[in-house]
Amino acid sequence: MDQIFPYQQLYNFSKSIFLAIGCSEANADIATKVLLSADLRGVDSHGIARLTGYVRLWEVGRINSNPSIQIVHETPSTAVIDGDKGLGLVVAPAAMQVAIDKARNVGTGWVSVKNSNHFGIAGFHAMMALESDMIGIAMTNASALVAPTFSVERLLGTNPIAVAIPAGVEPPFVADFATTTAANGKLEILQRKNLDTPDGWVQTKDGEPSTKASEVKNGGALLPLGGDKEHGSHKGYMLGSIVDIFSAILSGANYGPWVPPFPAYIPMPENLPGEGIGHFFGVMRIDAFRPADDFKLHMDKWIRRFRSAETVKGETAVLIPGDPERMMETERMVKGIPLLQTVVDDLATLGAKYGIEINSHKL
Amino acid sequence: MDQIFPYQQLYNFSKSIFLAIGCSEANADIATKVLLSADLRGVDSHGIARLTGYVRLWEVGRINSNPSIQIVHETPSTAVIDGDKGLGLVVAPAAMQVAIDKARNVGTGWVSVKNSNHFGIAGFHAMMALESDMIGIAMTNASALVAPTFSVERLLGTNPIAVAIPAGVEPPFVADFATTTAANGKLEILQRKNLDTPDGWVQTKDGEPSTKASEVKNGGALLPLGGDKEHGSHKGYMLGSIVDIFSAILSGANYGPWVPPFPAYIPMPENLPGEGIGHFFGVMRIDAFRPADDFKLHMDKWIRRFRSAETVKGETAVLIPGDPERMMETERMVKGIPLLQTVVDDLATLGAKYGIEINSHKL
Repeated sequence: MDQIFPYQQLYNFSKSIFLAIGCSEANADIATKVLLSADLRGVDSHGIARLTGYVRLWEVGRINSNPSIQIVHETPSTAVIDGDKGLGLVVAPAAMQVAIDKARNVGTGWVSVKNSNHFGIAGFHAMMALESDMIGIAMTNASALVAPTFSVERLLGTNPIAVAIPAGVEPPFVADFATTTAANGKLEILQRKNLDTPDGWVQTKDGEPSTKASEVKNGGALLPLGGDKEHGSHKGYMLGSIVDIFSAILSGANYGPWVPPFPAYIPMPENLPGEGIGHFFGVMRIDAFRPADDFKLHMDKWIRRFRSAETVKGETAVLIPGDPERMMETERMVKGIPLLQTVVDDLATLGAKYGIEINSHKL
Repeated sequence: MDQIFPYQQLYNFSKSIFLAIGCSEANADIATKVLLSADLRGVDSHGIARLTGYVRLWEVGRINSNPSIQIVHETPSTAVIDGDKGLGLVVAPAAMQVAIDKARNVGTGWVSVKNSNHFGIAGFHAMMALESDMIGIAMTNASALVAPTFSVERLLGTNPIAVAIPAGVEPPFVADFATTTAANGKLEILQRKNLDTPDGWVQTKDGEPSTKASEVKNGGALLPLGGDKEHGSHKGYMLGSIVDIFSAILSGANYGPWVPPFPAYIPMPENLPGEGIGHFFGVMRIDAFRPADDFKLHMDKWIRRFRSAETVKGETAVLIPGDPERMMETERMVKGIPLLQTVVDDLATLGAKYGIEINSHKL
């Protein structure tokens, strides 16, 4: 039932939409690249399927398509950036660039961002550091869907963390994960197929354990990585909290239950303690610790040792973080990106509104 | 069956032992404080019960009781420290101090350490930053007991992460957790009581799921936070890997299956790629991001909102990371520290060897 589109066609379409809502050429380009990197890497929930969602936020005035992104506080190794209500897809790479520049000067750079919006996949931003032989870290808070251990209430977002580490001959190590048992995107897939979730993914609106994929839609909550106390959910709760605090309390963004929702039709929380959504970025130059060649030699050795580990029955390989996404990216760059018919229809409606036909962008 | 000891008595005994193996006055003091902070905070597995283990490592020449701890590489915001085979209990606070000093100068400080040994509880080191209104981060690798997702082999340690964040009127946020479903100490408690573990904690030496607490002793493995793939164990595996890489590949310590074991009777791995055990420390001055008072005001608001969340049935409160340990510390400082009779016997034997009686230190 999927339609398959070449990357370039989706790139042209998405960029035209961003231009149509007032983005500059450069911003439309980077926003599209970030968005489509999710589709390429197989994180379909965060890719072009969300384009309409971003446009709706612009339509209701919650996104500024031409932001003035500024450093409002800094030291040699830190900065706080005001995203001026810009697309997170644009604000995040700008902030990451500041972190990279600081790392070049003093070894590391750490940037907390306020007044931003959803930034696509964390991995894209973390990976920006790789080409300069640096380690990249990216995280963001998000609207509250997750109940801390013992809580009925949803107080945290899925608050992902990405860490990209360069290697030598081997491809880089790229971890990118939500701090919940399962990302919301996986839940949505089960919900669409009317399948149950494993235990430990969700709870009901009264805080009872559940395996219904529809719980979160009905006021229930996603659970922190670990699922329940006995399986370490307090650790997932701690991780999600750290992301929230680094992203929003260091910067002055909204946090906890006050983080603005992505769907434009959901009303904003009241009495906001900050501005917009928060992100946090870190960059460490590897030669700020030891010669880059030494580091890479040992990363290669690490990767090879793990990849060659004996596997449990029924599995063929121990994966290195980033392996599945890289393989997917290689495949989709060649074979194209499959989109669900509902997504294609949604994009066609969006395009019609702005006089842009998705098929006119065929190569 | 426990005996209860006042903190000061255990402090005097432990310090005398460290002095007896050649530590300086200052090093015996800090090593004892780090060790006993575990007992005070209820992490009994990492406290004075390990004193004999540290002494044994010194007896076989793997610990240098009078190390020359040196910075071997640095930039304004980073350093690599060679621990000179010192006690991790001594090397870690020294490294953390370097990170604090760098943060004072350029906003943040990041220190990777090689040639060290086990450093006690990560939380102690992270919390060193609090009194300077800084965020502290501490992590360490450890000998391999954990199988990555799909691996039969043990390739990672329990690799803990601690993050301490100052608040205002509220007590600080202190997360301190192993990147496994359950810490090894919890497993040992179940094993002693001959109880089964929950699912998702361990696997057999052939990589089959198990609930026997004895598996790890019999060649099996602890599992990464998440337990299995369906419940996100690849995320725990990523976290443990990041700790390993930051602690050892940035510094030049041993990593993965090559990390030296804590028990002195276990032979060292062969063909070591690095030196000793690795740690990683980070410190961020909160006013490198925004005025400290603003930050603390919002941390207080965050903490109160989470603490006042509606709880699931059967629970009385949503805890803030650090709450249980702080309550335990307050109680044990007043009522004393309970030790198992086997631990008391072990300490008595150790004391006898060095002419130090634990009871002669009674107040």
